[in-house]
Amino acid sequence: MTDSGFSPEERQAVYRAIYERRDMRHFLPDPVDDATLERILQAAHHAPSVGFMQPWRFIRVTEPSLRRDIAATVEKERLLTAEALGERGQEFMRLKVEGVRECPVLLVVMLTDRREKYIFGRRTMPDMDLASASCAIQNLWLAARCEGVGMGWVSLFDPGELAALLQCPVGSEPIAILCLGHVDKFYDAPMLQQENWSQRKVLEELVWFNQWGGAG
Amino acid sequence: MTDSGFSPEERQAVYRAIYERRDMRHFLPDPVDDATLERILQAAHHAPSVGFMQPWRFIRVTEPSLRRDIAATVEKERLLTAEALGERGQEFMRLKVEGVRECPVLLVVMLTDRREKYIFGRRTMPDMDLASASCAIQNLWLAARCEGVGMGWVSLFDPGELAALLQCPVGSEPIAILCLGHVDKFYDAPMLQQENWSQRKVLEELVWFNQWGGAG
Repeated sequence: MTDSGFSPEERQAVYRAIYERRDMRHFLPDPVDDATLERILQAAHHAPSVGFMQPWRFIRVTEPSLRRDIAATVEKERLLTAEALGERGQEFMRLKVEGVRECPVLLVVMLTDRREKYIFGRRTMPDMDLASASCAIQNLWLAARCEGVGMGWVSLFDPGELAALLQCPVGSEPIAILCLGHVDKFYDAPMLQQENWSQRKVLEELVWFNQWGGAG
Repeated sequence: MTDSGFSPEERQAVYRAIYERRDMRHFLPDPVDDATLERILQAAHHAPSVGFMQPWRFIRVTEPSLRRDIAATVEKERLLTAEALGERGQEFMRLKVEGVRECPVLLVVMLTDRREKYIFGRRTMPDMDLASASCAIQNLWLAARCEGVGMGWVSLFDPGELAALLQCPVGSEPIAILCLGHVDKFYDAPMLQQENWSQRKVLEELVWFNQWGGAG
């Protein structure tokens, strides 16, 4: 069998990126230079995609008024989420769940329009385009981490409202507001764990054999 | 601003994993040792997830008869896909699109049941659980690559049929059949590019400013 081509140190670097990546909501004002952003976006673009369809589109928000409108959309959904959460609503409201106003780089990731023509791997599983674009976002996140750039994925928005703000065509779909920027410090653990919102499950309880819940 | 903590060599290792990862469909029969598989699955489990819900569940298929049933489900969908593809159907049928029968490790990734109680980041975007599980699969893919283990994501199946084979509860959902194993060689480029199914788009054409299609 072939060698991986990765030395133990290189392998360790990949695992460190995976383990030290965080969903960030606190950013420094320092700009992210264009070459770094280009490398991070190329990493995203080299994600796998179903039938090689490359469904991802990126819209960078640089207009202050548009950023304010996006922040307002997110804030509206934050309040509606708190309401929907019932007894945990107050706890939720105390969390910092996004950095839309202050992050130096604001990106929206969209699924392209006219996706219905892509059938390979999607005839029975049409959502595989979202799966592919999510792999791209994970690449982006890991590349950003090893560049020292923090990233947060915000999904607190009404997709129709966000699509309208960005003048997106029918059939396209926003899936993420990404906040990027340098950070004072990457959180030591997921922020929702630090804040006791939830804890990490034990992997062994999520891995089964031959059937749902099946023992090995 | 804080240092990334990654040396140029370590950063390069992360980019190499991203650029050299491939969707594999050819595997060697050599077994994958348990410790390696455990590291790869832990990498998946350390993916980000919406509201820290960790929606992923893994079912490892070790029973030969179950593997045969899964292969038959995939084969059925392969034929239906070829039919649906119309004029490209014959070209599709010449591609090797999966390695379900021969891969040493066969995993099915599921979204858990009872997901409706997770509202954080999902009130208006319920599919964010699929997005999270896709990030986990991308972690798994990258970790496998740097361990010298190839992986292919197969989505050619009827989800209801696969869920029934694995005795999965209502509300859960299979999103991936993952084929894993050592390989003779990682493809030099995506196989669908090598086979001229499709080519990689130019990133600059997918990155816009402030609106759909907007110039920078």
